[in-house]
Amino acid sequence: MTERSRVVIVGAGFAGLTAARALKRAHVSVLLLDRVNFHTFTPLLYQVASALLDPSEIAHPVRDIVRPLRNVEARLAEVTAVDLHGRAVETSAGRVAFNYLVLAAGSVNNFYGIEGMAEASFGLKHLDQALSLRNRILEQFEKAAWAKDPRRRRALLTFAVVGGGPTGVEFTGAVQELIRNVLQKDFPELDVAEARVVLVEAADHLLGAFDPKLREDALRRLERKGAEVLLRKEVKRVVRGRLELGDGEKIEAGTVIWTAGVKANDLARSLGLEAGKAATVRVEPTLQLPGHPEAFAIGDMAYLEQGGQALPMLIPVAMQQARHVARAIDGMTRGRAPRPFHYADPGMMATIGRNAGIAQLGPVRIDGFPGWLLWLGFHLLQIITLRAKLVVLVNWTWDYFFLDRPIRLLVRASR
Amino acid sequence: MTERSRVVIVGAGFAGLTAARALKRAHVSVLLLDRVNFHTFTPLLYQVASALLDPSEIAHPVRDIVRPLRNVEARLAEVTAVDLHGRAVETSAGRVAFNYLVLAAGSVNNFYGIEGMAEASFGLKHLDQALSLRNRILEQFEKAAWAKDPRRRRALLTFAVVGGGPTGVEFTGAVQELIRNVLQKDFPELDVAEARVVLVEAADHLLGAFDPKLREDALRRLERKGAEVLLRKEVKRVVRGRLELGDGEKIEAGTVIWTAGVKANDLARSLGLEAGKAATVRVEPTLQLPGHPEAFAIGDMAYLEQGGQALPMLIPVAMQQARHVARAIDGMTRGRAPRPFHYADPGMMATIGRNAGIAQLGPVRIDGFPGWLLWLGFHLLQIITLRAKLVVLVNWTWDYFFLDRPIRLLVRASR
Repeated sequence: MTERSRVVIVGAGFAGLTAARALKRAHVSVLLLDRVNFHTFTPLLYQVASALLDPSEIAHPVRDIVRPLRNVEARLAEVTAVDLHGRAVETSAGRVAFNYLVLAAGSVNNFYGIEGMAEASFGLKHLDQALSLRNRILEQFEKAAWAKDPRRRRALLTFAVVGGGPTGVEFTGAVQELIRNVLQKDFPELDVAEARVVLVEAADHLLGAFDPKLREDALRRLERKGAEVLLRKEVKRVVRGRLELGDGEKIEAGTVIWTAGVKANDLARSLGLEAGKAATVRVEPTLQLPGHPEAFAIGDMAYLEQGGQALPMLIPVAMQQARHVARAIDGMTRGRAPRPFHYADPGMMATIGRNAGIAQLGPVRIDGFPGWLLWLGFHLLQIITLRAKLVVLVNWTWDYFFLDRPIRLLVRASR
Repeated sequence: MTERSRVVIVGAGFAGLTAARALKRAHVSVLLLDRVNFHTFTPLLYQVASALLDPSEIAHPVRDIVRPLRNVEARLAEVTAVDLHGRAVETSAGRVAFNYLVLAAGSVNNFYGIEGMAEASFGLKHLDQALSLRNRILEQFEKAAWAKDPRRRRALLTFAVVGGGPTGVEFTGAVQELIRNVLQKDFPELDVAEARVVLVEAADHLLGAFDPKLREDALRRLERKGAEVLLRKEVKRVVRGRLELGDGEKIEAGTVIWTAGVKANDLARSLGLEAGKAATVRVEPTLQLPGHPEAFAIGDMAYLEQGGQALPMLIPVAMQQARHVARAIDGMTRGRAPRPFHYADPGMMATIGRNAGIAQLGPVRIDGFPGWLLWLGFHLLQIITLRAKLVVLVNWTWDYFFLDRPIRLLVRASR
């Protein structure tokens, strides 16, 4: 047999990791590169930020995941440039050549040029951001405990979440419960009514991708939990802890959380190819880069339309594309041309906190307690190892019965 | 009844937290100050550093611990100065007055002026240091995976632990097991024989406080695990990743861990009173500060001799002193003078890793597997909450049977 072709995969998120796993029987050797040494189960990042889960429950070492795959090697490196013509990537650890390339570096926050937002806001895209946000929430309460001026105290205790998609809604519900159920008991010296969680959304509804009935259910439940939801409000700028909205309204918010938009990793734009929406790169129906059949882009980096609509930046899209690309590369090593990719929508779910979830699976719509149970079960099954499943189950159960989140530690690595 | 006296306790470690709890029936109101919002179970810090436990398993929010105590309030603040005459402490959140003061701010690393050591070394005194050390170990292996020069690779993979006390011995055993049992599988591209864990101790034995028989047992077991133990070696300086010993020997060590000495928190010296060993403050036999009967120092900050010997900087000393001081303050509010403190030594234990522990309880000496089981049981009982006990048990069991440490994440809060 001929020497194995080298496949370089950039990014060990859902797209990159799935591609690496799906290539296990292909006659190739795979090098999986990521700037961190772990894969993150991003749907539960908001639970790390709201002090319910520890990092190791939603993140798992990439090397451990690929260990059973004999033809896959994982390495820590940041990819800084792609040389499509030279068939190599430049990384923080040097130049790496490839025969096939899979770009799966995901997305970053997109602030649409809103003044002050990039500097002022906390993100929920990566584990390090979730940890920072958790520290920030706890810090604000500790500062408020000392603050004598009621206006300063209220500003410290105001958390403005920008963006009413699943991440914004789930985090708003979770942080509202953290405050009402846990921090209220922790801070008897504070009046918890002074704390505000405000969700700001530009559209006239939350959760745009869901059915109108489920959207309204989510809105009602969020408000019943005590969160404020502002619809039809654009954010104009953030200046010194003050969020300024398009209609002139101002919110003194000590903490601003951005969940209102993402764009593709800068690597997509650096390719110099035609761009899609949100700084993505337009790919062929086969997910190949135009003019570079040996290079693929998948997940949040790739732009592809299906039935006249752009495929959304969602985990199921990324994972299905990853499996497609693995099949394509396997075929190419045997001289077969790749086929076009087709996305099959498996449905979606979100949770608004205790006892409240929504799910939309084909024609089926589920809300309330059944929707929540479905959400819990599905996410528990998705968590990557049995150990993490056990520990997450302990923590969820603890929180459910004792209204207690033991992870509320304000800690940073010292260097 | 008269108005309650205000007791300010500085530090929520074993000394301060125990004092706060022991004051729950006294007619006082207690303010417990710490620079972090959690209490750390320091005996297991080395397990966080060696990627076996998550922070929330050994650290618990102080506010949660004091919640059931109606007369105790916990606040986040760093105490920067003590005004004994004015009966107040200066903190990062302002001046706080007291009627009684309990100084329990613990100790920090003491580098004895060894050139380069403060800047170059990693500590194991605080949770943030343990997290940094964990990140560092994982980072060194990831860098070594890329390194082509064997000499550079060996330097990256050399970990020099300075100090052969319980912390140094336990960490050496744990990191050696992390490398041999876990990282060896994670890094198939590396030859694990290139990794060195070197324990450097100035005395001619490890674990000075233990029986000679137990000391030798620990040394033998550490060496059998593959760690190198250098006895009778003083560290002269650290220059650019090179540890220079007193006899001229040089060790190229990418990572240096300091466990060879501590000194009292700077607050002790700032009091301007007579100092004991290691920058402590000499206290009266009642633990009061000389000339300031309303102020006490306990734990690692206090110097007191018993039977002609200084009391050691150990958790049992700190906790017994804390209970004594609580009784003393309770008595003083009723007009009774404090009594002298007497320490009752409960014995001590240490572990050298899997299946190997030593314990010295009164006349009883235990080693090997029984010593290890005793160590596990005792520490599990000491962990502060049932939830943390459960999660620690899951992780210990996982590690024992699967030789797997799932916490090996290289992550820092982004700000």
